[in-house]
Amino acid sequence: MKINVDRIQLKTHLETLARIGGTPEGGVTRLSYSSEERAAHRYMAERMEEAGLKVRVDAAGNTLGILAGTKEGLAPILTGSHLDTVINGGRYDGVAGVTGGLEAVRAIKNAGIMTNRPLGVLIFAGEEGGTRFGIGRLGSQMLTGHLKADDLPRLRDKEGISLEEAMRLVGLSPERVKEAVYGSEQVAAFLELHIEQGGVLEKLAKPVGIVQAIVSATRMVIDITGRPDHAGGTPMAERKDALLTAAKMIVEFHRILREEGGRYTVGNIGSITVAPGSVTTVPARATMLAEVRDIVASTKNQMRDRVVSQFRSIGESSHVKVEVTILTDPDPIIIPEWVQNLLIDACHDARAVYHVMPSAGGHDACYLAEIAPTGMIFVPSHEGLSHQPSEHTELSDIAAGCEVLVQGLLRMDRYLNR
Amino acid sequence: MKINVDRIQLKTHLETLARIGGTPEGGVTRLSYSSEERAAHRYMAERMEEAGLKVRVDAAGNTLGILAGTKEGLAPILTGSHLDTVINGGRYDGVAGVTGGLEAVRAIKNAGIMTNRPLGVLIFAGEEGGTRFGIGRLGSQMLTGHLKADDLPRLRDKEGISLEEAMRLVGLSPERVKEAVYGSEQVAAFLELHIEQGGVLEKLAKPVGIVQAIVSATRMVIDITGRPDHAGGTPMAERKDALLTAAKMIVEFHRILREEGGRYTVGNIGSITVAPGSVTTVPARATMLAEVRDIVASTKNQMRDRVVSQFRSIGESSHVKVEVTILTDPDPIIIPEWVQNLLIDACHDARAVYHVMPSAGGHDACYLAEIAPTGMIFVPSHEGLSHQPSEHTELSDIAAGCEVLVQGLLRMDRYLNR
Repeated sequence: MKINVDRIQLKTHLETLARIGGTPEGGVTRLSYSSEERAAHRYMAERMEEAGLKVRVDAAGNTLGILAGTKEGLAPILTGSHLDTVINGGRYDGVAGVTGGLEAVRAIKNAGIMTNRPLGVLIFAGEEGGTRFGIGRLGSQMLTGHLKADDLPRLRDKEGISLEEAMRLVGLSPERVKEAVYGSEQVAAFLELHIEQGGVLEKLAKPVGIVQAIVSATRMVIDITGRPDHAGGTPMAERKDALLTAAKMIVEFHRILREEGGRYTVGNIGSITVAPGSVTTVPARATMLAEVRDIVASTKNQMRDRVVSQFRSIGESSHVKVEVTILTDPDPIIIPEWVQNLLIDACHDARAVYHVMPSAGGHDACYLAEIAPTGMIFVPSHEGLSHQPSEHTELSDIAAGCEVLVQGLLRMDRYLNR
Repeated sequence: MKINVDRIQLKTHLETLARIGGTPEGGVTRLSYSSEERAAHRYMAERMEEAGLKVRVDAAGNTLGILAGTKEGLAPILTGSHLDTVINGGRYDGVAGVTGGLEAVRAIKNAGIMTNRPLGVLIFAGEEGGTRFGIGRLGSQMLTGHLKADDLPRLRDKEGISLEEAMRLVGLSPERVKEAVYGSEQVAAFLELHIEQGGVLEKLAKPVGIVQAIVSATRMVIDITGRPDHAGGTPMAERKDALLTAAKMIVEFHRILREEGGRYTVGNIGSITVAPGSVTTVPARATMLAEVRDIVASTKNQMRDRVVSQFRSIGESSHVKVEVTILTDPDPIIIPEWVQNLLIDACHDARAVYHVMPSAGGHDACYLAEIAPTGMIFVPSHEGLSHQPSEHTELSDIAAGCEVLVQGLLRMDRYLNR
């Protein structure tokens, strides 16, 4: 049986959320643990309550709406995603999975179908935390015990506000994040609907992707210390220029990953700050934030080691001090074959054309996969653009992904109660 | 006749000024048109009044102290330098020439020598304006009519404060800078004592340098516009990475100047800012501040054109938009031969061992040279370090330079009244 979701509902929610933190360029800025993120959570919490879900917000800021099942005492099957964005990001990243998740649960309820287990929509806080605090998926990391109360004061944004303070400023309870940690009674399985953030599905003209593996990103900070010589008086050969050294590293980083990496290897150096930053002074310090991603752990680790060793050797030949600090270095996530097959069957139920593919981006699903069977459904990103105002996914594609999610939730409910 | 300057006076002033805006690292931060710069001007204004000079501050913030001469109606011979610094700069850059200038005038007065013309100590405001407003020598530019009241609202610091607002905030009168412009009745000649900011004099073990030419710096802003793709989902070959493009430019900039430049060619890319600055987003915009210096105008212009054309071609091959804006592009200053010879004679009077050399740094003297005969006296910089806390010049060397300045002022007075 195909269950059609309500596209008008989806459209309304997408358009309303686009206005919370909306930017003049048509993008959205709803940073992790900002008041804009909380406003978006509240908006969707109200929509969940209207749909008959019971809503609570945990100490970490994750919002959960639960629709009861027919059997007592069973852990719920969850779906969901995040509502925060990067600076001037897009309208669909995260939002598609939250609005689509609620619409899937609502459609099941409206079709008069009762599941054995409760169905839940989980809205994670702080997925884009990398933009503000250097580390992402903050809400799902707290929920799975990776980030603890003691860690929160150490993570700081550019204004010097710690994650602990940021949480308190929006009315959350950083000291009680331990209570937000999930056990097996909180989640039986997790399915996340998300935009692809790449151009594969659009090129194939397929509305749905079934994720087989999720890349992991090794993140690192590179600190370079040279000497702030006067730029007029110091011959170029005698300088210790931190920015020139950084530039050589950036060029070499891209060369290594493109020439020596695997098919799915990507990397990014997304930020650099230079001090003292005066045109008449040779840059004395440079700090960069870099990441390396792959779906194969061994390839990623090999590339990480190549890059770090090359950074050190450029530092030595440039006579400047180079320090590399690895911030996060998780293994890639392999989606269990039975979950992949269950979602492929769901595509057949929903009559959706699909493509099996890796996820090049990391997601909250990576952490949920540690505590429950987890799968992901992708919908196409126009021209592969994401994290920018021009990010776009057709409403019909979101609806198609959402209908696959409906069938996936129903199949998961049947599978877990065999 | 050799006139000895008072080293205790010099030492006291140097030490007191080092505390105004002193940093934990032992450096000094007295930004252009900051309250710290004004405090330093006030301190030296009081010292000038104590020494019998008549002091006034002009609308641009330049402080001038005048000691009367024996003849009426003659334009004064001026010496001086600046008191502002880069961020965490040194204790001697500018300060040596202001404290040494006052000490030279004081020593002449104390020796009972009366000059025909008035002698003056001119303290320029905002010499290090490049650090704060992107353009340097603000006070001397206003004094010579290069910067007008209309230009001041357009120059802004990182906090968005315009030069006009900054001037008003420290009690100056930006609307009246026209009144600060010097004619030939305000200055008959100008001699600036300054630290070398390079390592030539120390290597030669000579306490004094006589400047033959002052380099000019072409300053430019480079704006690079790429596309903020998601760093996980976008294959590296398909990106428009503004930071990678900037890195290629930085490497090429240094290669061109070192391999193709002349003996005195130097350049610096001193600052870069990147947006959006998130580790998960491909850098979409990068802005850099660069300069190219040479004492030969044709070499500098050739290098400027090479660099700009290479920047554009890197932009094209990287498929990103590159805009280069030239901020300043003055010609190098050649010191008149008679002024050089007058200062060489002054070295003989003072029994100082000297070296004739170019100035790799730009100075307020560059602008004064447009309106009056101008010369420069250098004293050694330890290890060639400048614009940093470890900047150091021996007190004995400052005193030696100061004694050459004494003789230079006396010789200039005689020369102009032949």
